[in-house]
Amino acid sequence: MTWGTIATWRMAAEGINEASKLLKGKGTADDAVEKLVKTVEANPLYKSVGYGGLPNEEGVVQMDAAFMDGDTMAQGAVAAIENVLHAVSVARLLSHQHYNSFRVGAGATKFAQLSGCEMTNMLTAKAKTEWQEKLQKEKNEKMSSYNGHDTVGAITLDQQGSMAAATSTSGLFMKKDGRIGDSPLSGSGLYVDSEVGGAAATGLGEDIMKGCLSYEIVRKMAEGLSPQAACDQTVYPFVHKLKKRYGRVGEISLIALNKQGQWGIATNVEFTFCVATSNEEEKIFMANPGVDDTTVISTVRQ
Amino acid sequence: MTWGTIATWRMAAEGINEASKLLKGKGTADDAVEKLVKTVEANPLYKSVGYGGLPNEEGVVQMDAAFMDGDTMAQGAVAAIENVLHAVSVARLLSHQHYNSFRVGAGATKFAQLSGCEMTNMLTAKAKTEWQEKLQKEKNEKMSSYNGHDTVGAITLDQQGSMAAATSTSGLFMKKDGRIGDSPLSGSGLYVDSEVGGAAATGLGEDIMKGCLSYEIVRKMAEGLSPQAACDQTVYPFVHKLKKRYGRVGEISLIALNKQGQWGIATNVEFTFCVATSNEEEKIFMANPGVDDTTVISTVRQ
Repeated sequence: MTWGTIATWRMAAEGINEASKLLKGKGTADDAVEKLVKTVEANPLYKSVGYGGLPNEEGVVQMDAAFMDGDTMAQGAVAAIENVLHAVSVARLLSHQHYNSFRVGAGATKFAQLSGCEMTNMLTAKAKTEWQEKLQKEKNEKMSSYNGHDTVGAITLDQQGSMAAATSTSGLFMKKDGRIGDSPLSGSGLYVDSEVGGAAATGLGEDIMKGCLSYEIVRKMAEGLSPQAACDQTVYPFVHKLKKRYGRVGEISLIALNKQGQWGIATNVEFTFCVATSNEEEKIFMANPGVDDTTVISTVRQ
Repeated sequence: MTWGTIATWRMAAEGINEASKLLKGKGTADDAVEKLVKTVEANPLYKSVGYGGLPNEEGVVQMDAAFMDGDTMAQGAVAAIENVLHAVSVARLLSHQHYNSFRVGAGATKFAQLSGCEMTNMLTAKAKTEWQEKLQKEKNEKMSSYNGHDTVGAITLDQQGSMAAATSTSGLFMKKDGRIGDSPLSGSGLYVDSEVGGAAATGLGEDIMKGCLSYEIVRKMAEGLSPQAACDQTVYPFVHKLKKRYGRVGEISLIALNKQGQWGIATNVEFTFCVATSNEEEKIFMANPGVDDTTVISTVRQ
């Protein structure tokens, strides 16, 4: 039977491996996508997600995450949550509630604590040093740069035909207290419908949410477009529109997977991503914007 | 020249009047929509928006608001902000920033304070009494009801052809700390594009965000549908879909205005709203779901 999974950035390679094992063994899309994202969250080497994520300007690691079940359309999300090892698991727990399924700030952290979620100091020594250096640098150069917006976004399709999507991020390095991006927002950071497919985003959240890009890609797939055509025909026109209307546009990369296990991406920057399906071995790919609003994809590692 | 404005619930009547005056006098859509929403926020009689809004289960009034400029697609939003008289004005201020334009919790409140926004104790004596009575009642009856989700959502079209949208709410009465709904979320609570039109939502945010309904209505108007057809063809199919897939669906009402000043609504409950355009005097209407996925509209007050 067909199964598949796709995730943003090469940092998701180990997570894709874990998710593949579950999906091969007839695990659920929900379990697989949570496992995938948790694997990225737990790795202290990744500076934009979970443990080891770079903090906001006050030195606090604030995380955003979301979870969506493509069978029921149930969603859970958290934003600006603190001291929680697996923000994505908190989001999944919230998706089981009809009311109060999206919680932010201290209320989100409180829910995680009451739910018995693992809590820890998310600021690693390495991240703290990087933050201190940045503070010093900004004092000298009066520069304001927001980097490190590499959200992990993932979509899974299981052998039973169910799909799920999830995201997790520590957001922009040096962001303001309480700033949230597109990652926890339905239709912007992620969207999935088991009868169609799913999509997820990474990049500058402030711009991604201006276009509801994940929703739009799923909608185009519902109209019959392939995931690649849906991505190309959503991302590039929006990038042009935002340049014209808003005057500028940040980094935007989208991934998509449909219910047949076919996938696609579009991006306005160099962008790596990971894929595994019942038809193709786990691979790391690189994508770049091509000519005439197309995407150029090459294999980084088999 | 054509101008127009539409807003959710009859509580917006005074706000529609204020916005109309601005729009008649060639004021901007941005100014008019902010003025409209501020008028509702400032009125202590309205229990679901701004001053006098009912608190969360801990007795704290936490507000969500958003602002979108239809010319530039710029957005600003706040969620779970406290002690701020005009959450919509904070959202508008944030819409001028490319980064950090959506802030939640303590960080949002901090921004408002630093920006010199008017701060006050948002819990009126009347709201406090209602909260205390509810606590007592829940203790006795072990009931859990979430009422009072009457968001003010508004769209404006000015004589220069620009459009704007905004929302503001204190959310579900007795909500959990940090719970946010659709109101601050782009594409769910609101969306506007001056070249097409805008839409805004009220109802159970947890369900509205499962469908990105405001974005979808604007998208359908861009394809040439009238606001009424766009609302009908978006809201009712989604209500059916959610009943089938999720098993239940909360209250959902959407309003829309296009760049020609035509408007539409769709709702699965009895729903009042206010309209004024260059072609028609200010009016309060009532809408109800009709047969075959249509909407029945009657005049409440000329």
